[in-house]
Amino acid sequence: MVARVASLLASLGCDIRAAEVYGDADTGSFFGRTEFDSPIGLESVCNKFFPLAQDLRLDWDMKDLDRKVRVLIAVSKFGHCLVDLINKQELGQLPIEIVGVVSNHEVMRKTVEWHGLPYHHLPMSEGKEAQEARFIEIIHETGAELTVLARYMQILSDAFSVALAGRCINIHHSFLPSFKGAKPYHQAHVRGVKLIGATAHFVTGDLDEGPIIEQDARRVDHAATASDMIAIGREIEASVLSRAVGWYAEHRIIQNGNKTVVF
Amino acid sequence: MVARVASLLASLGCDIRAAEVYGDADTGSFFGRTEFDSPIGLESVCNKFFPLAQDLRLDWDMKDLDRKVRVLIAVSKFGHCLVDLINKQELGQLPIEIVGVVSNHEVMRKTVEWHGLPYHHLPMSEGKEAQEARFIEIIHETGAELTVLARYMQILSDAFSVALAGRCINIHHSFLPSFKGAKPYHQAHVRGVKLIGATAHFVTGDLDEGPIIEQDARRVDHAATASDMIAIGREIEASVLSRAVGWYAEHRIIQNGNKTVVF
Amino acid sequence: MVARVASLLASLGCDIRAAEVYGDADTGSFFGRTEFDSPIGLESVCNKFFPLAQDLRLDWDMKDLDRKVRVLIAVSKFGHCLVDLINKQELGQLPIEIVGVVSNHEVMRKTVEWHGLPYHHLPMSEGKEAQEARFIEIIHETGAELTVLARYMQILSDAFSVALAGRCINIHHSFLPSFKGAKPYHQAHVRGVKLIGATAHFVTGDLDEGPIIEQDARRVDHAATASDMIAIGREIEASVLSRAVGWYAEHRIIQNGNKTVVF
Amino acid sequence: MVARVASLLASLGCDIRAAEVYGDADTGSFFGRTEFDSPIGLESVCNKFFPLAQDLRLDWDMKDLDRKVRVLIAVSKFGHCLVDLINKQELGQLPIEIVGVVSNHEVMRKTVEWHGLPYHHLPMSEGKEAQEARFIEIIHETGAELTVLARYMQILSDAFSVALAGRCINIHHSFLPSFKGAKPYHQAHVRGVKLIGATAHFVTGDLDEGPIIEQDARRVDHAATASDMIAIGREIEASVLSRAVGWYAEHRIIQNGNKTVVF
Repeated sequence: MVARVASLLASLGCDIRAAEVYGDADTGSFFGRTEFDSPIGLESVCNKFFPLAQDLRLDWDMKDLDRKVRVLIAVSKFGHCLVDLINKQELGQLPIEIVGVVSNHEVMRKTVEWHGLPYHHLPMSEGKEAQEARFIEIIHETGAELTVLARYMQILSDAFSVALAGRCINIHHSFLPSFKGAKPYHQAHVRGVKLIGATAHFVTGDLDEGPIIEQDARRVDHAATASDMIAIGREIEASVLSRAVGWYAEHRIIQNGNKTVVF
Repeated sequence: MVARVASLLASLGCDIRAAEVYGDADTGSFFGRTEFDSPIGLESVCNKFFPLAQDLRLDWDMKDLDRKVRVLIAVSKFGHCLVDLINKQELGQLPIEIVGVVSNHEVMRKTVEWHGLPYHHLPMSEGKEAQEARFIEIIHETGAELTVLARYMQILSDAFSVALAGRCINIHHSFLPSFKGAKPYHQAHVRGVKLIGATAHFVTGDLDEGPIIEQDARRVDHAATASDMIAIGREIEASVLSRAVGWYAEHRIIQNGNKTVVF
Repeated sequence: MVARVASLLASLGCDIRAAEVYGDADTGSFFGRTEFDSPIGLESVCNKFFPLAQDLRLDWDMKDLDRKVRVLIAVSKFGHCLVDLINKQELGQLPIEIVGVVSNHEVMRKTVEWHGLPYHHLPMSEGKEAQEARFIEIIHETGAELTVLARYMQILSDAFSVALAGRCINIHHSFLPSFKGAKPYHQAHVRGVKLIGATAHFVTGDLDEGPIIEQDARRVDHAATASDMIAIGREIEASVLSRAVGWYAEHRIIQNGNKTVVF
Repeated sequence: MVARVASLLASLGCDIRAAEVYGDADTGSFFGRTEFDSPIGLESVCNKFFPLAQDLRLDWDMKDLDRKVRVLIAVSKFGHCLVDLINKQELGQLPIEIVGVVSNHEVMRKTVEWHGLPYHHLPMSEGKEAQEARFIEIIHETGAELTVLARYMQILSDAFSVALAGRCINIHHSFLPSFKGAKPYHQAHVRGVKLIGATAHFVTGDLDEGPIIEQDARRVDHAATASDMIAIGREIEASVLSRAVGWYAEHRIIQNGNKTVVF
């Protein structure tokens, strides 16, 4: 498979810049990512690739790395992850285009609009169903390819999760699977852990159970209050989420059942 | 309280080398540790200290840092934590005296005896109750002040846990509270986590729920098999357990409900 | 000493909330930090403390933790550390009052003024001496107690460094003492290191040689370009600098020759 | 190139299990590693590969992953890295065969021989030149493919370094390029760093300047003495060195000028 893919690309005059493959011995699945320069357009390469992929029964996709991924960000009241994503996008560190921000609160409007981004206030007062319907409309209107829940403190309906499967990343403020659900830093404080963490994962119908993309942790000691953990955790959350979003935007993440392969 | 303790020590001619206090705002408890040189014996200081402690209603203890803590180590088949403790003790890094090794297997006998330590084989075939009774006897016979479960793969009875409360440290090969119970690396592999860890904790009747003393974690990626995690985990386990044992031996750990203060 | 300090505080009705002492065996110096609630004003405690301190020959200071430390921030073109400090201050994570921003460029003006902070443009075109003189004037005018060089890419004159000794923190974008001087990420890339880091230190006349307050590091692999290192490094720099500033603001840092004690 | 290599392997009935490539934009060099199962012997694949490699002007090598790399370990008095390598080899974590241990002291003989390994005492009293000549003889006699300096505290002659270029890994007990040369933990203690580290690198004629393979670091605080750093450092050294040796044994390391690519 590696040989046939590489040969086809070479026959089209493509220049392979990076390539990585991984075989999952447990499931027999085989994953690969190839980055290449092409003298012909993406569509032409796709057309040539299609029969080979069909023959090899590949589940595949081909993306233009020069085209930035369109990202919609959802936030509630805590803006640190949102602001970090905006800052890194502005610095050119994240190959994304932020097409707007959705929030069930007005708290972050001023900041978002100052950065020249559209802010959509979707209060929960209109009812969860109507609110989510409007959320999905905005995803369609903006052409968002990825929705990032950057401390969006609403539990999504199953329908919403299913509709966005593989296209929605959440940051959970604990080192999953520890401390699922609400107030994880308070849970961590009560349990007396010596490290706290954060987890970026794909959203699925099972709360905090989706495929994990990235995690990180940092030391705390007995003197750390829940508030201290919240403060320390902000840095971990922003760091972990921005890495996950960056890898998504570089098309490095492939789902492998309830796990992820990150090339 | 700080003032009265320090004043008493000063009045006895003691020289305070290190001191640390911590107040737990949630419970109102106040913790302290003072390290001092004394021109008079430990017993004399204790006697002088007793009335003050009673007056202040302190829950206190006073130890001679020059006297090494007597430690009994329990192991099953995997000897990496045991060997690490022995090596560090021999290098003078751990202020402990290893009074013996207990095991439900014969696997580690040769290594232990080569290091000149007594090896007690307590097979489970004699029945759990009898085996534990013999285990406790050995604790008494050896005068062990601390029992370290260095990958001792037996679930202890409640009675045993209670008898050793505060004097028994276990290493669990996961980042608790994630992946309690059996085969945590396999659980971690199935869940697809991006960090694996280990936890040293006091043993209580609730399996893997005792007060956490120390934790650490290390990155793994999608290519890590459960076996790779086991191999990487060995280093984390040995490192975490030896830190916990060292702190215990320096009398730095104080239980605070189901948490620990580590000075 | 511990005893006499604690006794005096107790006699004044002060309640010790936290205390830590450290003796440097190499130099014989002894360091301590005590946090206490007082029923009387700071000045009264100081007055009572003065004779004791004189008697004990203490080099001491007493601060009101409720009064925020006045901080002036200097920046050149890269605003990530500056923005991080402003964000953390606004979130209530840093007990500081930012009294203004000084820069030899105009790049960060818009951002700084949007946050409602005064921006002082001090171009180098006026000559280094005049520019530094104006910088020092602003420190005096604003009553800044701490000056933070948040990626301020100018080498300070000896006179300036001496004038701000112990009151000026710099972030250097390498893991000192590796890669002093200019373009440390490029140096790191050329050397092929596997971890990059950042260092917050007090400014002294010796460039990048001042007492280190905090450091951190993160993994990079062979594929990381100098640009990737710059991007990864931004998070480390901001995190390390904000910790150092926070500790300074909580009066936790004591200089010990060319080292620091951080309680 | 990727295409032609993969195609040839496929044409020989080989099954590619893992593959990774990396292009160094600075130098224009291109690196790759392919792991494959072959229905024919290594020699046959090599023979078929030779003309292609010549045509592509590849600098290449092909190894049998089932054949363990023969490793000679050199040590002086501190055995922690040596013992760690032996333990990991015995646990099956390192795909190496330890063919012997060389030392300028007798300290580690008993331990080494207990593990059933040959111990060669090469005292420096015979003179550096003679000692190194004997060392090289032992490398030849044992057929060692890799020589590991596991805290071997002798500065090698240029001739020795050149003779072993790319086949000799040293562990330096600092985070290079900080603290080259002697007593790095003492240097680190004097400088007051907040992280200490270790570096595994290929040996070259320039002391502590060879291509870095792996590094790691751990936090220390002001209270850590040089002895504490030495104790903490032992774990880092052993961990870093064993990773480097493991990668070498899996043929994952390729030199790239004075840097390394680690696949």
